[in-house]
Parts: sequence; structure tokens; C-alpha cells
Amino acid sequence: MDQVNVDDVLAELREALTEENWNLAVEIVEALRPPDQAEVFHELSPDSQDELLPRLDPEDSADILEELEDEDAAEIATRLETEDLVPILKRMEPDEAADLLGDIDPAQMSEALSVLEDPDEIRTLLEHHDETAGGLMTSAKVVLHRGISASQAIQHLRSLDLASEDIHYVYVVDSDNQLVGVVSLYDLLVSESGTLISQIMGHDVISIPASADQEEVARLMSRYDLLALPVVDEDNHLLGIITHDDLVEVLEDEATEDIYRLGGIPEEQDANVPVTSALKTRLPWLVLNLGTAMASVAVLSLFENTIAQVAILAAFFPIVAGVSGSAGTQTLTVIVRGLALGEINPRRGFKALGREVSIGITNGIVIGLLVAIIALVWKDIPALGLVVGAATLLNMIAAGFAGAAVPLFMQTIKIDPALASPILVTTISDTMGYLIYLSLATLMIIQFLG
Amino acid sequence: MDQVNVDDVLAELREALTEENWNLAVEIVEALRPPDQAEVFHELSPDSQDELLPRLDPEDSADILEELEDEDAAEIATRLETEDLVPILKRMEPDEAADLLGDIDPAQMSEALSVLEDPDEIRTLLEHHDETAGGLMTSAKVVLHRGISASQAIQHLRSLDLASEDIHYVYVVDSDNQLVGVVSLYDLLVSESGTLISQIMGHDVISIPASADQEEVARLMSRYDLLALPVVDEDNHLLGIITHDDLVEVLEDEATEDIYRLGGIPEEQDANVPVTSALKTRLPWLVLNLGTAMASVAVLSLFENTIAQVAILAAFFPIVAGVSGSAGTQTLTVIVRGLALGEINPRRGFKALGREVSIGITNGIVIGLLVAIIALVWKDIPALGLVVGAATLLNMIAAGFAGAAVPLFMQTIKIDPALASPILVTTISDTMGYLIYLSLATLMIIQFLG
Repeated sequence: MDQVNVDDVLAELREALTEENWNLAVEIVEALRPPDQAEVFHELSPDSQDELLPRLDPEDSADILEELEDEDAAEIATRLETEDLVPILKRMEPDEAADLLGDIDPAQMSEALSVLEDPDEIRTLLEHHDETAGGLMTSAKVVLHRGISASQAIQHLRSLDLASEDIHYVYVVDSDNQLVGVVSLYDLLVSESGTLISQIMGHDVISIPASADQEEVARLMSRYDLLALPVVDEDNHLLGIITHDDLVEVLEDEATEDIYRLGGIPEEQDANVPVTSALKTRLPWLVLNLGTAMASVAVLSLFENTIAQVAILAAFFPIVAGVSGSAGTQTLTVIVRGLALGEINPRRGFKALGREVSIGITNGIVIGLLVAIIALVWKDIPALGLVVGAATLLNMIAAGFAGAAVPLFMQTIKIDPALASPILVTTISDTMGYLIYLSLATLMIIQFLG
Repeated sequence: MDQVNVDDVLAELREALTEENWNLAVEIVEALRPPDQAEVFHELSPDSQDELLPRLDPEDSADILEELEDEDAAEIATRLETEDLVPILKRMEPDEAADLLGDIDPAQMSEALSVLEDPDEIRTLLEHHDETAGGLMTSAKVVLHRGISASQAIQHLRSLDLASEDIHYVYVVDSDNQLVGVVSLYDLLVSESGTLISQIMGHDVISIPASADQEEVARLMSRYDLLALPVVDEDNHLLGIITHDDLVEVLEDEATEDIYRLGGIPEEQDANVPVTSALKTRLPWLVLNLGTAMASVAVLSLFENTIAQVAILAAFFPIVAGVSGSAGTQTLTVIVRGLALGEINPRRGFKALGREVSIGITNGIVIGLLVAIIALVWKDIPALGLVVGAATLLNMIAAGFAGAAVPLFMQTIKIDPALASPILVTTISDTMGYLIYLSLATLMIIQFLG
């Protein structure tokens, strides 16, 4: 099947809905793959969504709610009657069903749980915080006992009649439900029929405690190239498994979080959140930024006389402070990303710091010279060229130092360097820039005029 | 097995190497999992690496070269004799072997290829560009013909004696080698023995042309939650498959690329590249930044007289230009990430633009008022408060507009918005800030003094 043009499908679907041709609308949606179903569904008006969802096969409705963003799914579920919601919940992956129930009204949640056949499975999953290993896990569908044979294992798998996509490994436990091994489906498939599971299983199982952060989940799964990660309690009892679709989501989430934080937005949110929610995260950060900018304002006001005497000095602020600030941001970016990817070991931070300071010196010499020449040629004042060039050189070094030292220090005191560093590095490179530049200029004026 | 403390292992290993106790050194390395082997190996001196590698089982050496960063692996391979390199290449995944050969000296590559038993497999892979689907694919190890039965398929798998980890799906072709279906190992495992492959295979196979960009690979695999993606030529002939470890790498690469570009570094590189290579990517960008900063310099020099008359005006530059610039960066971050994740449809860009401008207006009113109050209380000059506040409000709106309009426009003309936007948005918010602020101030001066 080729890829779907969502816009075309959406036009067809909207026409069917306008004509109240429900059969055709259902047919259009059910012909799509789940992620495409969710994208098309998301574009419909709430009224159309409410008309369409109960008419779909609950299997498809479950797929759609799983694929939608959590908040969108919760909004739609809230508008459903419990009798329409429960059949859908039953067909969702237990972890997705738990996430959805955790996001809706508690009263509606209890009502739904009271109607479900096996509410304990979901209740257990509801206990864990969303961004921990426990919050990501789903119940393990196939668990084998170490004493059985490979052919018994295959019989057992046949009897379960599962949807095939999610199963790639099978975990093995002892009589105490402690995790002791893992068998890949491939090994099971090619094993001789008499073989015992304990003979073909791998003993080297990587697992994670339920309380571990999702970042640790992503690190383990991507480092060891795992398609599934078993979650255990303190006594190594198997609680559930995390599947690789969660890995992809966590990787994207963590990257988005870093990008947002480096861009001065402390909390990740969808690009389409309401303006008021966007303001709630962005405005406090700008107010904080206003506070730190006051350091520069204070420095500049100290030099009011110098500026009044030689107003052209102000024309070079965008270079002395601005371009050095860009160099600081470059350094900050490399260090923050290097720390996130494990390329930089914070204990060996001095090496990175030395590297960035030497880059700052070289950048400073080149940019400083260029600026000095520009100032000289343009204004024909040698002293101005000297001051602008020297200040740019010195501030490039300061910015390189701050761009490396601040995130390394943040990491050491366990504050996310992507969060706190941008505002600090900018403040330092701005304030230092003005201070160095205007101090040099004042000295020069005293020299010449005094 | 628990997780390894790399520093402890490294200390032990270094001691064994100093004592030239090769057996112990080999034992220490071979007890580790491949990613840990590679990390430990990477920390050794080149001399120790050269002593140790030929003593390891070629299987382990192959794992280490696969896990290392491409440049590091190439550096080590270059120092090996061809007779030591070839047994390692044989045990590497074909795609990894091709990547490695593509990175070493062409003469050494030809020599190695001439000794390999099946050089054509690797030669074919060498033809594709690294960052395309063809460059990521490896040869498909198991391909079934649609006419055979499930039990024949299982027999065939047994006869191949493969390492189990990589196989989760098996692809099905017709007599013309055209891709017609996919079977999961699970479906194979639970199938009745007489069943034909064509009866259990899925017909809805998502595939990708060899020339497609790796970003498209990541998009398809993460959207449709695929563990493997078959690569085809124009006539739908199966050329190879991309495995999920590549997906994780591509996702990390693409995120790093966006983070670097937003941070003013046009080309992604390891945090530990030599200073000269770092300068080669960063310095030209700073020079470009110097060029765009000249726009602000020009605006400021136009207003030299205004600044000379009221030097305290300069003290508020960090707010009028700087804090508005931060607001512009926030908007830019949301739009660039939203475009990358597909949350924002560039064809519906007007909606996002309108959103960001209204956020700019609200931010502008709040920050503008605060700044006006600060200026008024501090300097007790109502006119100053008015000018600073009004300029901040107007520039916040301009920054919000630029932060959204620039990346949306870049996306439309097919330039990566993460690359070109930061420098343009900063230039616009700086230049507009100075222009608005000093124009208002000049008008005010004329009003009062003129």
C-alpha cells in the first residue's frame, strides 16, 4: 500500500460526514493505518468526532485513542458515555488505557474501572508516575516458566491468540516470579523440539527498576539496542515490559525538552496549545530574563558619561556583546548536547573547558581583528578600532569560558544544564561585554583627554 | 547481569595492559557487552588499542568497530594490517562494514575488498550515499518466496544459523524478486504446519526507495512503529532492509542537527572533535553573524546625536533589543520544533503566525509596562519610561512576527528553518528594536527640546 495523502482523505471524509453517509465515513477511516486514522480524526470538529467514534469498530477506536496525543485522547474520552468508552478501553494496550484513565475525570475513571473485567491490571499501572519506567511499562503478555520445553512454549503462544506485532522476546521467570532469562522468538523458532527453555534462554537480561526515570529507560534501550526492556521491583520480580514504541516517544520527548529549554521555554508543550497556556510558560521566563538583563542595564548606566562623550561607542554594542553572545551560545550548545549524549564526561569537564576557551581565543583574535579594521576604516579613529577589537577578543574568551563552565557546573549540582544555562550564559556574555568594552573606552578617554 | 562501572573496568584493564598480561586483558574485554566494550576500548591509548585488538576474538573486534563512532572506527582500522582487518570485516554487519570501508583510505579498501569472499554484497552497499535509505540498509538475511509453506520457511531459517537478535520480520518476494509481503516471526511460530506463506503474510508492506533521505526513514519507522523497513528500487525489487538500531541513531542525529543549527552551528559534529575542525564550522558562522550585526551597527550610528544628547537611553538597549530577542527565540523554537515534529502544517502557517503575534502582544504589554515602571521609578523621567515601554511592546510584536514568519518562509522555500532562522530572527529583533526605540526617543527629544 502506498502512503496516504491525508488532505485528500480528509476532504472525502468531510463530504461523507456532511451528507451523513456514516457507512462511507466508517469505511474511509477503517481503510487507513492507525497513525493515519488518528491524524485524520484529529482534524475533524468535536461534533464529527463524537458522531463517528461510536460507529467505528472498537478496535479502530482503540487504535485512534492510542495514537492521538494524550491530551487530545483525554478530551475525546471525556465526551464519551462510559458504555461507549469501556469496549474501547478493553482493546487498548494496558499502558495506554492506564494513561488515558489517568488523564480523565476521576469520577469517570472509577465508573469505567468498575465496569472493566480486569481492572487490577490497569490499576497497577496507574500507580506509577508517567515519566518513570513503571509509567511506561505495559503488562507482559507472555511469561514462561524456566522448566518448560520449547515446544510447550510454542503451544502456549498459540493458545494465547495475540496480536503479533508487539512480541519479539519472551521473558522467563522462576517459581518465585523472579526474572531469570530471555528468549528471542527466533531462538524459539529454530530450536529442536525437545529443548528446555532454560537451555536456549539468555541469562544476561538487562532490566530496570520501576522507579527509574524515563531518560534512563531511553539510555539503556538505545545503548544496548533493545526492542523491549523488562521492569522489575526491588526483588527482581517481573512487573511488566517497556516496548520499543515507547523508546521512540521518549527519545523525541527528551530532544524536544532540550530544544525548548535551550530556546528559553522551561516546559515542553505542543506547538498548538492555547495562547494562555503558552503565556504561562513563556512569560515568567521573559520576566526572569528582564531581571538578569538589569545587570547589563546597571553596567551601562555606570558608563553614562563615557557614552555621552563618545556616543559612537554605542554603535558597536551589537558586536562586542551580540557576536560574542553568539559564540557563547555555540559553546553552550556543544556542551549541553555533549552531556546529554554522554560524549562529555562531567568529571573530565576541565578538558572540555580548556577546549572551548582555546576556541574562544582563536575566534576572538579573528573576529576582534575584523571588527578593529571595520571600526578603523569606517570611522578613521585608531583608538576606537583598538578598544572595539580588544574588547571583542576578551569577551569572546569570557563567553567561551561561561558557555562551558556554566552547564558543566549545573550538571555537577544536578540541575538540567539545558534549563538554567542559556539565560546565565547570555547574562554573563552581555554584562562582561559591556563592562570590558566601556572600561577600556573610559581608560582610553582619560588617556587622551585627561 | 548488572550494569558495568566503566571506570572500574578501565582501571583493571589498564593495569593488565601495563603488566602486559594479555590473557587477562582479553578476558576483561570479552566479559563486557558490546557497547561497554567499545566505550572502554575508546578510552585506551592508540598503542594499547593496537596491541589489544588483534588478540581479541574477531567477533568481539567486529562488535567494537560497529559500536564506535564512525571516525574512531576508521582511525583504528587504518592502523590495522589487512590480514587483521579482513576477519573482523567478515563478522561485521554488511552495512557497518561498508560504512567502515567507505571511511578508510581507498587503497586499503580495495585491498580488503580483494581478499573478502563476497565483496559484491558490500560493494552494492557502498554505492549509496550515507544519509539515504540505501546508505542505512543492510542486506536482507532472510527472504522467502511466496510459494513455500510455513514449515519450509522454518526449515530454511534453521539452516541459515544466524545471530538471532536482528530478525523480527521476514520479507516475501515473488519470482521476479518484487516485494509482495511481510511475515512476523510470531505469525510464523504460531502457524499451522501446512499453511502457505502467502496465506499468513501481510500484504500491506511499507517500503522506501533507496534514494530517500534518512529523515524520511525516521519519519516512516517512528510513525508506523516499524522495527525494520525494506528498501526497494523503482521497480519494487527488494534491495535490503533498515533495522531499528539505525532508527535510534537517525533520531538522535536529527535532533542533534536541529539543536546545533538552532545554536548557531551549521554542521553537527562530536563534542570532542579537534579544535581546528570545530573552528572550521563555527568561525564562518560568527563572521556571517558579524555581517548581519552590521545592520544594527548602522542603525545605531544613525542615531549618534540622539545618544550623545541622552546617553542614558543606551542603558536600556539590553531590554528593548535583548529581552525582545529572547521572546523571538522562544517563538522560533516552538515553530522550528513544531515543523520538525509535524505538529505545524506549513500550509496552515497563518494560524501559527497569528498565534505567535498575539503572544507577542500580550508579552509586550506585560514586559513593556514593567520596563516603563522600572525606568520611571529609577530615573524619574516620565518620557523615558514611555519611550522604553512603547519600544519594548512594539519590538515584542515584531520579534513574535519574525520568529514565526521566518522559519515558515524558510520551510516553504525548502531551506531547513533550524539552519537559517536563528541568525535572521536575531538580526530582525535587534535592528527593529534599536530602530523603533531610537526613533521614538528622537521624536520625543524634538518634542521637548525642539
